[in-house]
Amino acid sequence: MYVEPPVHVVREAVARAIAEDLAPIGDVTSALLDPTVVAECRVVAREAGSVAGTACAVEAFAQIDPAVEVTLQHRDGDRVEPGDVLANVSGPLRSILTAERTALNFLGHLSGIATLTARYVAAAKEGGRAQVWDTRKTTPGLRTLEKAAVRAGGGRNHRGNLSEWILLKDNHIAGIGIAEAVRRAKDLWPARTVHIECDRLEQALEAVDAGASAVLLDNMTPEQVAECVAAVRGRCLLEVSGGVTLETIASYSATGIDLISVGRITNSAPVLDVGLDI
Amino acid sequence: MYVEPPVHVVREAVARAIAEDLAPIGDVTSALLDPTVVAECRVVAREAGSVAGTACAVEAFAQIDPAVEVTLQHRDGDRVEPGDVLANVSGPLRSILTAERTALNFLGHLSGIATLTARYVAAAKEGGRAQVWDTRKTTPGLRTLEKAAVRAGGGRNHRGNLSEWILLKDNHIAGIGIAEAVRRAKDLWPARTVHIECDRLEQALEAVDAGASAVLLDNMTPEQVAECVAAVRGRCLLEVSGGVTLETIASYSATGIDLISVGRITNSAPVLDVGLDI
Amino acid sequence: MYVEPPVHVVREAVARAIAEDLAPIGDVTSALLDPTVVAECRVVAREAGSVAGTACAVEAFAQIDPAVEVTLQHRDGDRVEPGDVLANVSGPLRSILTAERTALNFLGHLSGIATLTARYVAAAKEGGRAQVWDTRKTTPGLRTLEKAAVRAGGGRNHRGNLSEWILLKDNHIAGIGIAEAVRRAKDLWPARTVHIECDRLEQALEAVDAGASAVLLDNMTPEQVAECVAAVRGRCLLEVSGGVTLETIASYSATGIDLISVGRITNSAPVLDVGLDI
Amino acid sequence: MYVEPPVHVVREAVARAIAEDLAPIGDVTSALLDPTVVAECRVVAREAGSVAGTACAVEAFAQIDPAVEVTLQHRDGDRVEPGDVLANVSGPLRSILTAERTALNFLGHLSGIATLTARYVAAAKEGGRAQVWDTRKTTPGLRTLEKAAVRAGGGRNHRGNLSEWILLKDNHIAGIGIAEAVRRAKDLWPARTVHIECDRLEQALEAVDAGASAVLLDNMTPEQVAECVAAVRGRCLLEVSGGVTLETIASYSATGIDLISVGRITNSAPVLDVGLDI
Amino acid sequence: MYVEPPVHVVREAVARAIAEDLAPIGDVTSALLDPTVVAECRVVAREAGSVAGTACAVEAFAQIDPAVEVTLQHRDGDRVEPGDVLANVSGPLRSILTAERTALNFLGHLSGIATLTARYVAAAKEGGRAQVWDTRKTTPGLRTLEKAAVRAGGGRNHRGNLSEWILLKDNHIAGIGIAEAVRRAKDLWPARTVHIECDRLEQALEAVDAGASAVLLDNMTPEQVAECVAAVRGRCLLEVSGGVTLETIASYSATGIDLISVGRITNSAPVLDVGLDI
Amino acid sequence: MYVEPPVHVVREAVARAIAEDLAPIGDVTSALLDPTVVAECRVVAREAGSVAGTACAVEAFAQIDPAVEVTLQHRDGDRVEPGDVLANVSGPLRSILTAERTALNFLGHLSGIATLTARYVAAAKEGGRAQVWDTRKTTPGLRTLEKAAVRAGGGRNHRGNLSEWILLKDNHIAGIGIAEAVRRAKDLWPARTVHIECDRLEQALEAVDAGASAVLLDNMTPEQVAECVAAVRGRCLLEVSGGVTLETIASYSATGIDLISVGRITNSAPVLDVGLDI
Repeated sequence: MYVEPPVHVVREAVARAIAEDLAPIGDVTSALLDPTVVAECRVVAREAGSVAGTACAVEAFAQIDPAVEVTLQHRDGDRVEPGDVLANVSGPLRSILTAERTALNFLGHLSGIATLTARYVAAAKEGGRAQVWDTRKTTPGLRTLEKAAVRAGGGRNHRGNLSEWILLKDNHIAGIGIAEAVRRAKDLWPARTVHIECDRLEQALEAVDAGASAVLLDNMTPEQVAECVAAVRGRCLLEVSGGVTLETIASYSATGIDLISVGRITNSAPVLDVGLDI
Repeated sequence: MYVEPPVHVVREAVARAIAEDLAPIGDVTSALLDPTVVAECRVVAREAGSVAGTACAVEAFAQIDPAVEVTLQHRDGDRVEPGDVLANVSGPLRSILTAERTALNFLGHLSGIATLTARYVAAAKEGGRAQVWDTRKTTPGLRTLEKAAVRAGGGRNHRGNLSEWILLKDNHIAGIGIAEAVRRAKDLWPARTVHIECDRLEQALEAVDAGASAVLLDNMTPEQVAECVAAVRGRCLLEVSGGVTLETIASYSATGIDLISVGRITNSAPVLDVGLDI
Repeated sequence: MYVEPPVHVVREAVARAIAEDLAPIGDVTSALLDPTVVAECRVVAREAGSVAGTACAVEAFAQIDPAVEVTLQHRDGDRVEPGDVLANVSGPLRSILTAERTALNFLGHLSGIATLTARYVAAAKEGGRAQVWDTRKTTPGLRTLEKAAVRAGGGRNHRGNLSEWILLKDNHIAGIGIAEAVRRAKDLWPARTVHIECDRLEQALEAVDAGASAVLLDNMTPEQVAECVAAVRGRCLLEVSGGVTLETIASYSATGIDLISVGRITNSAPVLDVGLDI
Repeated sequence: MYVEPPVHVVREAVARAIAEDLAPIGDVTSALLDPTVVAECRVVAREAGSVAGTACAVEAFAQIDPAVEVTLQHRDGDRVEPGDVLANVSGPLRSILTAERTALNFLGHLSGIATLTARYVAAAKEGGRAQVWDTRKTTPGLRTLEKAAVRAGGGRNHRGNLSEWILLKDNHIAGIGIAEAVRRAKDLWPARTVHIECDRLEQALEAVDAGASAVLLDNMTPEQVAECVAAVRGRCLLEVSGGVTLETIASYSATGIDLISVGRITNSAPVLDVGLDI
Repeated sequence: MYVEPPVHVVREAVARAIAEDLAPIGDVTSALLDPTVVAECRVVAREAGSVAGTACAVEAFAQIDPAVEVTLQHRDGDRVEPGDVLANVSGPLRSILTAERTALNFLGHLSGIATLTARYVAAAKEGGRAQVWDTRKTTPGLRTLEKAAVRAGGGRNHRGNLSEWILLKDNHIAGIGIAEAVRRAKDLWPARTVHIECDRLEQALEAVDAGASAVLLDNMTPEQVAECVAAVRGRCLLEVSGGVTLETIASYSATGIDLISVGRITNSAPVLDVGLDI
Repeated sequence: MYVEPPVHVVREAVARAIAEDLAPIGDVTSALLDPTVVAECRVVAREAGSVAGTACAVEAFAQIDPAVEVTLQHRDGDRVEPGDVLANVSGPLRSILTAERTALNFLGHLSGIATLTARYVAAAKEGGRAQVWDTRKTTPGLRTLEKAAVRAGGGRNHRGNLSEWILLKDNHIAGIGIAEAVRRAKDLWPARTVHIECDRLEQALEAVDAGASAVLLDNMTPEQVAECVAAVRGRCLLEVSGGVTLETIASYSATGIDLISVGRITNSAPVLDVGLDI
């Protein structure tokens, strides 16, 4: 079940990208074309991957020219192979060429995230049932869209921002201790998730005893993680974080951990190569 | 000579990122800390690379709390090694923790671009004197900052957007031919750069004869490029584009080409790992 | 421990209010005054209550004229009596009069919310230990500031918006049942609070068994609530919602319930009467 | 004759409210629903009152999802009884639930203002022909909509902001006197309303003689007001302001005064209870 | 007594102009300069005129670089001769050159309006005591600043926009007549200026009898205007509008009319030539 | 071949103008009209000229009320005579009157620029083949629309802003000389137009030798220009700038110069008189 990003975010992000690409004069190249020429084009995947960002692509053509018609052949979350057509685009050629790069930049960037996420998800599945979690390590200004792309890739969304839940790291705990920190959190922000970063098993157990909703096991080996899983025995959600790679994720997943967060799925995903064929 | 991005772009991008990370309540975790606690922290590179985005990092702390003081130890364009301190940050701990991720997301993303650019620049230099050029394949909403990061990495900026100059591709030329397209461009947009994408030597020569400012040699082998360089003999700028990698760039640069454009330096650069030590 | 609203929200809300009050010409009345006249003024409470919105008041004077100096005598959360001075304001009289209404509108509105919240908090305390929770029934565009005002009045913040956590109401549950709804929620949004609205004890127990983080008891009498409290025995947070008044809140609090949410503290609070004396 | 608020204000206020309620992820609860489920709902008044804000409610559903259809059964200014249907809403259930609170917050807040205004208008009519006037004591950011709600309740709009007309209070007059202040106002701002706040009959007469368009009688008793009405004999508009309540307004209206301004109709009106039945 | 435009309008207009002049890369020319070079410059009038827009010029340099210092030698409303220094500007040469055109565009445009206004004001004075009034015929997006420039030139501001007062033209009156239109206006918008456009003396008298605050005499000759002035005998303000020129304004002013509105002072004023000397 | 301004710029400029004209209450005058009255109107040219800004006029009516229908009878770039109908407008009279001034302000301002441009273009043609170029001397906030109006008048667009190309003036060259400045420009900004301002023939030749794309001949007489044209012999584009008037432009055009830039076509064009007949 894929959940789309809110439409107002799509609208604003696309409007910003179009303004960025057309200021101050407009498209000086397509201005040379006969405005009556129409074309039928296809947005085509040039490599295999998972699709995300289709709403942005549709919006980009629509904002440039409502006369351009876009028919999606694939939806966010679909798996595509090289040569697969993502969308048919028809209408005034001038407008299509003006909108092309904006549409492709969104599609390529967000599908790149979905694709890398899907690779981590598949690798994790080989080890066990752990879900892949994103982080707040997103590209500034694009978090909502990138978190939707993670969902399109089969990943799950960690907290969306600093407001959504409490995540206590060592600097927050230093001086007051875990128990007091959790007590304050539950008093000040009742019902909100309280999540605690721990480096060692004892800390994790202390966090669970204090009533944490989730515990982040930071930079542990799979063996250390397995020990924690065994000790906590399902009393709260357990997350692994820190340096997990495509090579190591299966061994973490095999520990029985619930969640594995990976910053690079949002901040280091190469684009999915997508082009427009006319 | 590094050219910084305009300050108003820095201000707006940071404001947007902060709003994104704090809506609707604010930082519910650092709210648990004693507001009088102050700290001295360091922004530290965790891997080697080239720095970019320092203005954004400074702005992030300033917008969250003017009481936080940031002293830069490195500027955009500097090369850093693992463990190098990019900046000292001191002030209220609550504010520092609230701004941390926003500041690091900018630094990591933009330094990642500078770092990958610098690698391409270095590789190109091994072959010859070709400059590395960016493209319009940037992350939506961040083009100005990403193009500055390219400069920080020693690369050069291709046109900033569709307004800056004319770039005629096959779809623009189809039906009217190169000569007529250039004539129209020079008539409608006098003094503006006229850049033409060519697949074959004959096209390139036709473009040069028509008075093009620059010719983009699309998806050619180094041998084909060398042939074009020889034939054009400096009559206009020559650019190579399409699938150039870190492995192949030196061989392209060795052809005597002027510019090599690489989309992935902006759309596929992994972040530079940067952290905050307290 | 009072948590201030993010400063960027204060800045934007004040900027919007100033634009609203000065378009298109400016303050045509204070324009008649000699611009060199300065004054010393006091912001004074005309009735007893709890203060909120001081950051907005300070910002309003600063945005109109940085030459106006504001010294706060009370902070958000302070209790004031009629005649108490909230702040001293000195500087150019023209600027002070121009900013006056904007500053007072924020102070009055937000202190009104803090004051009504504090009354509910005090009444609840007479019955037991239940905390007073706000809702999403806030004034459009002012939620962040109003939720801060609730905190200033000693209340707590329910979810900030639709993104922060899952709150399943009857329409969400219809057709799939509580257990399946919770299962989906925990799968799709791991670690996020899952909150369930229940009308009857059996539903509440079903929700607790399904692993809900919190249960909202909707429109129950204190007796029904007490029965639920007894049956759930601390296995999850319990909230009462629906028609609780200043008269009835103590009897609900006496049931041992954890949280009592009250829409009217944000959407129906009369202003606290605050004026500017020159 | 009801005058609607400008549509661009409706659009912007709703867009801001939606952004506020959906950042950063979207509606995590309705995401659990089957996207193909449709529903027919009714917006229902749960108590008697006067309607306002219908344009905002329509806009809220439209901005979330154009597939939602809203058919208004009542317009701004209509009187409704408990159980009356304000609007029928049909379409995708997910979208309806996502937009529900935003739509209701506007309707409840603005109808609350219309309802309280209508009560003051009715009470004033029992005493005489005085109109009820709003003030600049509005909720920051919502003035245009709140002034429209006052009109929906049968009230009239005082100046919209500091730009619309001159209102001289004691601090403006101090030092130069009423006659000179009015002379300056008429010279600098010809044809613009000149309104003067007076505490005593002599001041009021001085203002009328100086050519004021309207005089505000500040904090007077009905007897004092009646004396002013008699003395001024229709030579300019007379307004009563300051502490007028539902209990006292008829006695003020009976004096023959033209206008009675009441701050609380905009800044202290409780919401009208409006709900969505599915 | 000159009244400055609100500072938030200055800030926003300048921010918009800077964004317009620097997108997407920044100032590619001053980037070539050594960033450490500083300069002392002067903003100089190249022709005689009246100054306006100084706040915008100061703001332009400040937004580009706070290190640039601007010392105004003349204020809005001052009369300058060719060669007069309006301001000294010192600081980093790069920043000065980047901000130069934005600052000069504001100064030139707004001083152009002030200058043309001052010419009309002087010409009107030769005939009598009539004031020069602006209109809503302003440049889209710049009304607040242009109306301030009119004040700097000694003119007066007509209504700022459609909200400020009622101006009934023939299309508004058609079908209901003047008396009924005024009655409605006074009922719906009490205390607001009611202004009526009239083509003939009888209409003007009807408007005065109906209680109009001001009457606009449309496209009349000086003789017709004189007749109206005589007939109305000061019972309301009289405005002349329509095709008044620098040549004819004195003859209109000589009729004893109160106000003469001139659209071209805002929509057709040539710039005042202002330059930057280094 | 006329190139329209980007639609998002039209949308935003119109939205800003409408907000400016309606804040805070709306159109208080047309509020007095019966909302059911419809009308058929015509936008009519009251003097001869060239049309520009039609997209803005259409957008203004659409943003106020989608029920208003506008049928354009002339497009941007068309030449009209007094009495010619530019557009038919039909729909609710209230909405038409509310939008009228905003629509006409855009049409008048932009058509004024197109008209003055067309006069310069025609005058230049009498002398030779030189094109008329605009400058960055535009009205702040309206550059994109004004540059489109210049195109509608048959002129050409110089660089759109500081980002588009390098224009080296004496202050940029001072200290390093032309050759070094051009070398830096070509190194830092490859393929970008390098334009150099010159006062004397020797400078111009130096610039051409250095590889400038275009040379601006500053404040020269036609004789001096002719000398430069002869000396440069087509090796780069030549522009004349500085004080060229309608009287002198033909003599400059006759020199064989390529481009003549004229600041006043954008910053000093009187409006084209356009009205709405009902």
